[in-house]
Amino acid sequence: MPELRHDPLQKRWIIIATERAMRPTDFEVCEEPQKENTCPFCEGNESMTPPEILAYRDEGTQPNEPGWTVRVISNKFPALRIDGDLDRRGLGLYDAMNGVGAHEVIIETTEHTLTTADFDHDQMIRVLTIYRDRIADLKKDDRFRYILIFKNHGEAAGASLSHSHTQLIATPVTPRTVAIELETSKEHYREKERCLMCDLIQQETVFPDRIIRDDGHYVILSPFASRFPFECWVVPKVHKHAFETTTDEELSFLAETMKDILSRLKICLNDPPYNFILHTSPNTEAKPKRPMYWQTVEFDYHWHFEIIPRLTRVAGFEWGSGFYINPMPPEEAARYLSQAAPKSS
Amino acid sequence: MPELRHDPLQKRWIIIATERAMRPTDFEVCEEPQKENTCPFCEGNESMTPPEILAYRDEGTQPNEPGWTVRVISNKFPALRIDGDLDRRGLGLYDAMNGVGAHEVIIETTEHTLTTADFDHDQMIRVLTIYRDRIADLKKDDRFRYILIFKNHGEAAGASLSHSHTQLIATPVTPRTVAIELETSKEHYREKERCLMCDLIQQETVFPDRIIRDDGHYVILSPFASRFPFECWVVPKVHKHAFETTTDEELSFLAETMKDILSRLKICLNDPPYNFILHTSPNTEAKPKRPMYWQTVEFDYHWHFEIIPRLTRVAGFEWGSGFYINPMPPEEAARYLSQAAPKSS
Repeated sequence: MPELRHDPLQKRWIIIATERAMRPTDFEVCEEPQKENTCPFCEGNESMTPPEILAYRDEGTQPNEPGWTVRVISNKFPALRIDGDLDRRGLGLYDAMNGVGAHEVIIETTEHTLTTADFDHDQMIRVLTIYRDRIADLKKDDRFRYILIFKNHGEAAGASLSHSHTQLIATPVTPRTVAIELETSKEHYREKERCLMCDLIQQETVFPDRIIRDDGHYVILSPFASRFPFECWVVPKVHKHAFETTTDEELSFLAETMKDILSRLKICLNDPPYNFILHTSPNTEAKPKRPMYWQTVEFDYHWHFEIIPRLTRVAGFEWGSGFYINPMPPEEAARYLSQAAPKSS
Repeated sequence: MPELRHDPLQKRWIIIATERAMRPTDFEVCEEPQKENTCPFCEGNESMTPPEILAYRDEGTQPNEPGWTVRVISNKFPALRIDGDLDRRGLGLYDAMNGVGAHEVIIETTEHTLTTADFDHDQMIRVLTIYRDRIADLKKDDRFRYILIFKNHGEAAGASLSHSHTQLIATPVTPRTVAIELETSKEHYREKERCLMCDLIQQETVFPDRIIRDDGHYVILSPFASRFPFECWVVPKVHKHAFETTTDEELSFLAETMKDILSRLKICLNDPPYNFILHTSPNTEAKPKRPMYWQTVEFDYHWHFEIIPRLTRVAGFEWGSGFYINPMPPEEAARYLSQAAPKSS
């Protein structure tokens, strides 16, 4: 059983995965290029994956057979296990609990070589809709406090399979980065009764040096304190704390926005490796309930996507210090990305 | 002038370096293998580096000429500039200040191919002594709140030159990871009037599953909530908040300990890329003084080295979430490293 462990100095939870016994030599990297006909995510190879959890399919087709457009499966090497109780326990000064959670893979397309930036509008809508469906479904499980949606594109960004996919991890704890945002947002709300992100968006719109695109529904911007060159955020302009409450109409605008920024990055940076991650409200129904903490989350937190091109090597001091050096001023990054005009779909 | 920017959501400072104008294409990686005779860190090539700040030298030799054993220079491409005022300022909801600081390189040896694990005892003492000297000297500058010592070994760990060296960055802010440790340590001290790290070391010594080596002066251990496979900490057994107060006698034991763990990693993991970083007390004399915050730091904070072998690719979700998956249980890592016996020097 994997274990979740809490670091008392850093106040941070770590997953210790134990599903595969590893020896020191297992870490020497030696990867074979993957042959296309053996890709488990390609249409026709459904039997090579764990059974599907959800798929959007043509009428009349059967689960785990061809005929789908987007498909969700369990991760074959899950970091967390879906079965069991949390069993929270203290170990002297330490805290631990069972590694209970979900680890899923969202296969975004049947086409092996298509990148997310190349999807047509309808396919992009399907991908975002299946994010929404999986989050809504997993929030019904009151063991899970957070549902994390993230994508690794390209080997340098950590993708082990090149076929376009997104990952989902449901955890019994809130990841630290999100927890810090929840706290700063709550503090701001307590003082001003306004959402911090709404205030930031308002300020950015007045001095639009860092705005890449603003269609009135979603804004793409280079954050003021970007950690990485060409880091971008996609933020809804109207306050919304939880991604899964996005309406179909809003998803259509979001699909356009996501395609737009992924295309700009592809054009401007020559199809760079990148990661994106969804920051959204935690599961306020998770047990044990934390009413004080969650009470105002609907008003104070504002969901957004963070997109990080992986252009620079991250050295040790960033890991050890939480301090970043970014050689590209965000205003310049915004200017380059504004000028990289994608084809409209 | 580089700029320090504060992220109001994450409460984190970022360095926006502006010394080199960069274009999007500058990030396409295309490195040439370096020729040995052009290494600026080799003895005889002193004129290829900025002038030295400090060096331990044979008697009768001149600065910036051969005859040194360890040598400190300014970084040729500094992330921060040594001259100027901080000029703290608000920009609406944001905070910024000038990128004032020091960025130095400690050349650990004259020998191009020697790794830190191969140093003899005297050389290791010299390296640690020069860390101590530079920290003590830079703490006299009351603009600098923190002196960060870190090392990147191997290309995958971010080293751009293979010749053994350490970097030093002096900053007008405390890096977030250290700030969080300072806070948790202070909380623990307020409640118990004991140092959190002292308590952890005590507990680890009772159940020594994660102890790799303990010579009575320094302990090497795999932290309970290790983020990375084979992550290690080197911690003084007697409480000490500031690295620069280490005595010569203690440095000798520390040199033995550092050589020991770097050799174990080299043997066990086949000379892996790694980073290490020194976590030590901030500069309590920095202006503006923060008496409430620093008052008890002498009693509540405990310096240590964090060593991180770079064996796994770090994917997007770690960046975006602060949540880590470690496939190697720390107890097993400690067992492997305990068994990898280095030659005694």
